[in-house]
Amino acid sequence: MTTVAAYAAPAAKAPLERTTIERRAVGEHDVLIDIRYVGICHSDIHQAREGWGEAIFPMVPGHEIAGIVAEVGPGVTRYAVGDRVGVGCLVDSCRVCENCRAGREQYCTGGNVLTYNGVGKDGEPTYGGYAQTVVVDENFVLRIPEGIGLDEAAPLLCAGITTYSPLRHWNAGPGKKVAVIGLGGLGHMAVKLAHALGAEVTVLSQSLRKKDDGLRLGAQHYYATSDPATFEDLAGGFDLIVSTVAAPLDLDAYLGLLKTGGVLANVGAPEEPVRLNLFSLLNHGRVLAGSMIGGIAETQEMLDFCAAHGVGAEIELISADQINEAYERVLASDVRYRFVIDNATI
Amino acid sequence: MTTVAAYAAPAAKAPLERTTIERRAVGEHDVLIDIRYVGICHSDIHQAREGWGEAIFPMVPGHEIAGIVAEVGPGVTRYAVGDRVGVGCLVDSCRVCENCRAGREQYCTGGNVLTYNGVGKDGEPTYGGYAQTVVVDENFVLRIPEGIGLDEAAPLLCAGITTYSPLRHWNAGPGKKVAVIGLGGLGHMAVKLAHALGAEVTVLSQSLRKKDDGLRLGAQHYYATSDPATFEDLAGGFDLIVSTVAAPLDLDAYLGLLKTGGVLANVGAPEEPVRLNLFSLLNHGRVLAGSMIGGIAETQEMLDFCAAHGVGAEIELISADQINEAYERVLASDVRYRFVIDNATI
Repeated sequence: MTTVAAYAAPAAKAPLERTTIERRAVGEHDVLIDIRYVGICHSDIHQAREGWGEAIFPMVPGHEIAGIVAEVGPGVTRYAVGDRVGVGCLVDSCRVCENCRAGREQYCTGGNVLTYNGVGKDGEPTYGGYAQTVVVDENFVLRIPEGIGLDEAAPLLCAGITTYSPLRHWNAGPGKKVAVIGLGGLGHMAVKLAHALGAEVTVLSQSLRKKDDGLRLGAQHYYATSDPATFEDLAGGFDLIVSTVAAPLDLDAYLGLLKTGGVLANVGAPEEPVRLNLFSLLNHGRVLAGSMIGGIAETQEMLDFCAAHGVGAEIELISADQINEAYERVLASDVRYRFVIDNATI
Repeated sequence: MTTVAAYAAPAAKAPLERTTIERRAVGEHDVLIDIRYVGICHSDIHQAREGWGEAIFPMVPGHEIAGIVAEVGPGVTRYAVGDRVGVGCLVDSCRVCENCRAGREQYCTGGNVLTYNGVGKDGEPTYGGYAQTVVVDENFVLRIPEGIGLDEAAPLLCAGITTYSPLRHWNAGPGKKVAVIGLGGLGHMAVKLAHALGAEVTVLSQSLRKKDDGLRLGAQHYYATSDPATFEDLAGGFDLIVSTVAAPLDLDAYLGLLKTGGVLANVGAPEEPVRLNLFSLLNHGRVLAGSMIGGIAETQEMLDFCAAHGVGAEIELISADQINEAYERVLASDVRYRFVIDNATI
């Protein structure tokens, strides 16, 4: 066991503060990662504040981890000291269920292990990336290709894969009209990825405040959803809409923007239920789908895709003592577009 | 114009009564059909009582029409006097929009014409199949193959295609586990069709009252949804669930019965919005889809499939003077499984 510095929430809704945690000794198949950067994901805030239900405290959030391999266990075959690596939302899974065997570890039915706010196979709570190091089984470590900075790569491990997976699953690509609801941490990745996949991209944002950014990131069109005319002008126009917002939406209004057979893929996680008129789906055989992060192999595919297409996150680098302030700014949608902690400051 | 006897609702929520209506003269591409049987669809009741919004009165419901061709216009090429034919929910569409060209006339964006409670291209209200005859453009007439009785074929024109279309679209077939919610007019067709398509079929019904029927119709399993254990026993078990009920469902509970990536295809049309927890879709990347009847070519495909597999509706034949009583029994779920009117009694 090694003692390392970390930032933790000591209790629900309490501010995060500097502390120390224990990391397990490097086992046979483990990789010790010197964490260089970690993204601040909206779900860090949901969980630190128990917005999704009871959580484990103290909590060290952080599942957008990028760093350098510092040590490997004797059985490790895929990584070596000095490799550029990442860790996302999962650090283990049952590995034997139908979903694990199919590379869908995020939907493991045997019980997967979340990077933080989870319980490891050793029975100990897991601590995330707001820390100097982490020890992870090599099967849940991703390779970050050369050509992407580790800082701009960190958010790909959650925001990137969360948007890449539904874009791929629902066939975003050339000839397809894709809309992205919300231009935040997830949304800006969805725009970049959908554009890189060859789709014609439209941003649907509350206001036109970030329009210049949206167009720069790869969108061809940008509409304000506060303007009722948007819903008339765009009715029936999209093959795919990716909703990245955590606030409850007027789903019926957005479903009306889909073509026949079109798909609204939701990756946002509102804390409250939403209302839905089933006629919105009956009309034009529309589809409402959910998607949660992605599997390990798919995450590697996404990282390789991003490297090949020069896609990274747009980030604001902060020091660890700015975490609590950053949380408030995320909640106020005041970030362009992902806070990333410089772990050297922890 | 020809005057024929019909049963009509003179106003919203008023009982249906015998009356006469005018049918247009047989035009160039028209087929005059001597209606032999017409099914009573739940949507007849919704519309006659304005449950789905403002409707046109007097209303002659009926879009599950089976009969014999009595006369054809000079331009008709596909039907001849004496042919066994059917008419479903549509009697015309714009024919030029993307959906019409793709055989999805039910989603016509140029404005299709409903068989009743619609307005024809001549500007006149349309009247449905609770009548002695109907005049329909040959492009919206279906052929009822030999081997299915006209009485048991009538409900295929709505209940059959409404369930066949999502079963086909979402790949019900060998190796797939399909559940059907509700064993009514639509549900019993879904069971028969899913079974004929080769799927392993489970009925999810409020009680076990109709269990023997369900198994006889082709289901291999039958569960009561009033028993909370059902939702535990079947969790994560289905590739596809077809919901045929018009009452608002606890969608979250039913979505939990789907495998990873599974689909809940809804064909029921509740008058009220439903509540949905989006986590029910995020978990296991589940899908909630809508589907509304089917296109003309697909309806013919369904009829041919039914003839090849000996599939017809289970019906209770009634005389026209029993329509109002039948409506009450449909609302009380007291029909096994579709009322069909003997049009000789109109």
